[in-house]
Amino acid sequence: MIIVLKPHATPEIVEHVLERIEALGLSPHLSQGVSCTIIGVIGDEDKLQVQPLQAIPGVEKVVPILKPFKLASREFHAEDSVFTIKGIKVGGGHLAVIAGPCAIESEDQLFEVAARVSRAGANILRGGAFKPRTSPYSFQGMGVEGLRLLKSAGEQFGMPVVTEVMDPRQVEVVERYADILQIGARNMQNFDLLKECGRTRIPVLLKRGLSATVKDTLMSAEYVLSEGNRQVILCERGIRTFEDSTRNTLDLSVIPNIQGQSHLPIIADPSHATGRPDLIPAMARAAIAAGADGIHIEVHGCPEKALSDGPQALVPDQFDRLMDEIRPLAELMGRTIDTCKKEATACAPC
Amino acid sequence: MIIVLKPHATPEIVEHVLERIEALGLSPHLSQGVSCTIIGVIGDEDKLQVQPLQAIPGVEKVVPILKPFKLASREFHAEDSVFTIKGIKVGGGHLAVIAGPCAIESEDQLFEVAARVSRAGANILRGGAFKPRTSPYSFQGMGVEGLRLLKSAGEQFGMPVVTEVMDPRQVEVVERYADILQIGARNMQNFDLLKECGRTRIPVLLKRGLSATVKDTLMSAEYVLSEGNRQVILCERGIRTFEDSTRNTLDLSVIPNIQGQSHLPIIADPSHATGRPDLIPAMARAAIAAGADGIHIEVHGCPEKALSDGPQALVPDQFDRLMDEIRPLAELMGRTIDTCKKEATACAPC
Amino acid sequence: MIIVLKPHATPEIVEHVLERIEALGLSPHLSQGVSCTIIGVIGDEDKLQVQPLQAIPGVEKVVPILKPFKLASREFHAEDSVFTIKGIKVGGGHLAVIAGPCAIESEDQLFEVAARVSRAGANILRGGAFKPRTSPYSFQGMGVEGLRLLKSAGEQFGMPVVTEVMDPRQVEVVERYADILQIGARNMQNFDLLKECGRTRIPVLLKRGLSATVKDTLMSAEYVLSEGNRQVILCERGIRTFEDSTRNTLDLSVIPNIQGQSHLPIIADPSHATGRPDLIPAMARAAIAAGADGIHIEVHGCPEKALSDGPQALVPDQFDRLMDEIRPLAELMGRTIDTCKKEATACAPC
Amino acid sequence: MIIVLKPHATPEIVEHVLERIEALGLSPHLSQGVSCTIIGVIGDEDKLQVQPLQAIPGVEKVVPILKPFKLASREFHAEDSVFTIKGIKVGGGHLAVIAGPCAIESEDQLFEVAARVSRAGANILRGGAFKPRTSPYSFQGMGVEGLRLLKSAGEQFGMPVVTEVMDPRQVEVVERYADILQIGARNMQNFDLLKECGRTRIPVLLKRGLSATVKDTLMSAEYVLSEGNRQVILCERGIRTFEDSTRNTLDLSVIPNIQGQSHLPIIADPSHATGRPDLIPAMARAAIAAGADGIHIEVHGCPEKALSDGPQALVPDQFDRLMDEIRPLAELMGRTIDTCKKEATACAPC
Repeated sequence: MIIVLKPHATPEIVEHVLERIEALGLSPHLSQGVSCTIIGVIGDEDKLQVQPLQAIPGVEKVVPILKPFKLASREFHAEDSVFTIKGIKVGGGHLAVIAGPCAIESEDQLFEVAARVSRAGANILRGGAFKPRTSPYSFQGMGVEGLRLLKSAGEQFGMPVVTEVMDPRQVEVVERYADILQIGARNMQNFDLLKECGRTRIPVLLKRGLSATVKDTLMSAEYVLSEGNRQVILCERGIRTFEDSTRNTLDLSVIPNIQGQSHLPIIADPSHATGRPDLIPAMARAAIAAGADGIHIEVHGCPEKALSDGPQALVPDQFDRLMDEIRPLAELMGRTIDTCKKEATACAPC
Repeated sequence: MIIVLKPHATPEIVEHVLERIEALGLSPHLSQGVSCTIIGVIGDEDKLQVQPLQAIPGVEKVVPILKPFKLASREFHAEDSVFTIKGIKVGGGHLAVIAGPCAIESEDQLFEVAARVSRAGANILRGGAFKPRTSPYSFQGMGVEGLRLLKSAGEQFGMPVVTEVMDPRQVEVVERYADILQIGARNMQNFDLLKECGRTRIPVLLKRGLSATVKDTLMSAEYVLSEGNRQVILCERGIRTFEDSTRNTLDLSVIPNIQGQSHLPIIADPSHATGRPDLIPAMARAAIAAGADGIHIEVHGCPEKALSDGPQALVPDQFDRLMDEIRPLAELMGRTIDTCKKEATACAPC
Repeated sequence: MIIVLKPHATPEIVEHVLERIEALGLSPHLSQGVSCTIIGVIGDEDKLQVQPLQAIPGVEKVVPILKPFKLASREFHAEDSVFTIKGIKVGGGHLAVIAGPCAIESEDQLFEVAARVSRAGANILRGGAFKPRTSPYSFQGMGVEGLRLLKSAGEQFGMPVVTEVMDPRQVEVVERYADILQIGARNMQNFDLLKECGRTRIPVLLKRGLSATVKDTLMSAEYVLSEGNRQVILCERGIRTFEDSTRNTLDLSVIPNIQGQSHLPIIADPSHATGRPDLIPAMARAAIAAGADGIHIEVHGCPEKALSDGPQALVPDQFDRLMDEIRPLAELMGRTIDTCKKEATACAPC
Repeated sequence: MIIVLKPHATPEIVEHVLERIEALGLSPHLSQGVSCTIIGVIGDEDKLQVQPLQAIPGVEKVVPILKPFKLASREFHAEDSVFTIKGIKVGGGHLAVIAGPCAIESEDQLFEVAARVSRAGANILRGGAFKPRTSPYSFQGMGVEGLRLLKSAGEQFGMPVVTEVMDPRQVEVVERYADILQIGARNMQNFDLLKECGRTRIPVLLKRGLSATVKDTLMSAEYVLSEGNRQVILCERGIRTFEDSTRNTLDLSVIPNIQGQSHLPIIADPSHATGRPDLIPAMARAAIAAGADGIHIEVHGCPEKALSDGPQALVPDQFDRLMDEIRPLAELMGRTIDTCKKEATACAPC
């Protein structure tokens, strides 16, 4: 930690800061110049974090040096984390292809999409049972009945399933049906939900918040990790910017950025980020070329009849073409796409 | 709702869209030009919202006309909402002055600050018992013990008290001790928490999320209102921008913007927005001049020893001066600052 | 300047950085801890700025301490700068009220608005002759003919006049007619234009760019100042954010923020920032309460017939009411509104 | 164009709007519902744009339908534009690989880098002679002497050269030495510069502004095109967001987004966008996978001694590796990388 004092700081202020540092058992290094004084503190930065040195009059700014996250860092765990979920590996060269409808609407709708995405090569099935909707008057999801359908579809097609959990009180029931718990972008800093998911022993798919920095995102992962659950998959799903021709702005630089400092897998969700089927394939390709550990794509048999986020879904035929584009790219990037064990059965077209 | 078709839309597409609208019992108005076709739909827009017309191939864009919120709108309730909380009015010309420490740290700390802010003219006491911290290793609040201290301080100084609730499971206990439930910026779209607070019958102080639009914010209020709780106070606390010399950017235009379309009171929190005591007084004044229904200010006896967000707190003497600045401004703006009934007793300096 | 080395930096890297600093005649201070090494450099930071130390492998980050601007800083000039422009003072307690149409469209239009704003109490007249339009097909301004009208209106109503200059080649002609040169937000980092305006001897009204930080803005002022022109008036006119119900987001915290570090006057332009007449008065009041040294308001006799930015203009009657609101507020804030010498003559209504 | 009236608009207002539209020779279509009235106007939207209908009291909002740019649109020119610059094709499946130092510092520095990037496979050489620097005290470029060196290096290595022009007065001299004129992000809305470059007959590399939307960017291109120069290459170089661990945020979705509506080639500049050599290769790959028509990479022999933007430059060895990664990816994407004719000669290592 570096403490920069205001120009012309009095000796009393310097003394006051030094005393405070020493009282914590730390050793300050004082550097004084003509117009500026800085104090370096090498040691256990945690001790200092709880002391808001910045509030001392005479202190210009405090610059932390160490990263605030630990369990999420490469310093703690140098190798890429790889999680095996019902036989499907994620991370460390294994590419997750998560696909399925935004919301589970009916058995027919879900199974039809599951059959198609499974046949096309997706290896994890997604579907929302509890839906975070900006309007209280919108469809809020099928709830537990949706969870049951999802589990059943996962079993039929041999795919692990992921679904969103929005409330700490739902964690227990969702864990009973799902293989991966999703925490949505709007809940990325719902700390009680993070902790509750951290107490389960199944992987957590944590989406970056719409205005979360890389550091914020890793700190939220740290909440889950620090409760004992070491299986966190991060997901970039777009941030809010001034650009108004897309739903959000997919920030792909976070992929190598996070991979450089954390061992956790990170995937990209071009469906939510762009909200536009015409941009999803290009952004899925870009994510893989950027080194993403997976992609998350919404697919719906008839988007114009979807109860949630229809306009951003690919239809199964578009998803087929996307997979055809992605396979050689994944190979070029040295990525394996694990395949589900059960053969997907045929299904009627939309 | 206006549906703009892509240039050169075929008659089949036009027909398809018209049929879908008519199937909902609505009447479409077709306008066709040389290069462009638009379809206007006048009627119950809710029926259409669930139909993602935008997903129909051939549709360029869908422009909603009606506002998506109802109970929060001035169309539903034309007059300013005024809430009376333990004798203190908020809204409709009554200025809330909410002050207190970021986190409740001890009885001494809380009572000392409460005494000072009460004496200076604050009329609602704030203090965090459950703290949303970006790091799991930071102080997480005193919990229920903190709630007890807050209630007791409120009684001693005759002030209603407000504290944050982060988890739907905490709503019941927080409601027992607090007069106002605060929903923090990071939880603004924690829809289950919104609903749970909507089921209580005490006012909810809802903070705008860091990247929430005005519409998003009013939709979150709608969640609370639609559960039956009609007492929502909105709070602007800064949004995330690229400016890096302040913690966030206080967007004061939301005050007249929201007041124009909603009857709910809206206050401003310059403490969280700026994170800088040197900017807080100017921003508090600006908020009042913009027509805010209140301000929210963090005050700490010794910011440099605060367990949470110390650097952004005013010391009691600064708060005294702020109140001296604010009183004539509030008067000029035609605002009354209700005063608490009990006389604040003297307290020892920091 | 503080140089933070990467964890486990080798002695060779430490040595390499130290040598580079000493080669510049500066003295490094080395602080080494278990996991981290920092090097403080006290002295002439300018010498180091040209050396991109951050590019040295093994360097984690470089933290500058000194501010990069000099002539714009309070360290260089402690007192508020006050400029006297044709008898009207700006800064140091004198409030500039700049008003007029977005674009000069005709003699009648300009003189009518000038008469009304002058009578209402505006003390500087604005009007665009060269218009920066996002579309090449939009009205681009009346050019030199507009400048002539503006000068003539200024003389008739005894008001100094301000108009935008967009091209370094126009500076000479604009300087002949105008009392203040405006540099628009889109040109804030048009460095050649800044330099050219810096070579004149009339004040420059420099608008903050749509995504410029406070530091960027002061650095652009520094460009003008460093050419010898010490009369720069800064202007906050809104930044681009994700909020889509206003044109931009007025960031009023920059007012006390800049006043704390710079002696230059800073005014606010709620017309461009909000783009909405219903929000302009509240934001003008807020700006004054925040301590702004002036406001910039667009006024048009018939906004629905304006050739540029009509929707954001106030009509003269609205401007009259705004001035009535602002006068007592300015007085409360200890601000004087200098008045123009000539009596405004009556004019026909729109 | 669609005009939405405010709820309960009076018949007088409706009449007033209809008259105004008809006065322009256009035909309005009126749709009236219980709570809402909309007026559709099909026809020449340009006529209406100059009429700020939004300023009419009683008008809620005006929604344009047609795109405001013409020459830049696919409607005007359906096929991809392909430009041939000294034998190197850009666009339509031909990938531009633009590389070179941020600033030209000396003959040795430039030729050394040119030799290396040419040998590695770059096909266009870049180098700044006039540098836009945020500080007036920073190195401002070598000027015309730099241009001469650049032209000479281009000839020696058989590469077309691109360099930035910042001032309309420089266009003539820059055009004499360069094969492509670059307009930097900070000048994207310097409309006089755009026009001046539009009057030349050499290609313009137009960088997206730091807070420019896709529409803004295409409108700036339209300025160049409307002056008669039909050779504009767009460049995404990062936008400003709240993320503080990278210089800017590379928004790759603009690549398919712009390609969908415009025939102009668009390239990506991961060097300026990220400012971090550790992220540049991944973002260059992602850009190509997203379908970019080229990449723009800064390379410097000794970044730690660079006079401008050193920390973001790749060293020649890193650029070699990047090209090795990019070649198979370009092939997979069906992109050709045109090669320069002259054999690059050997050069001494840094």
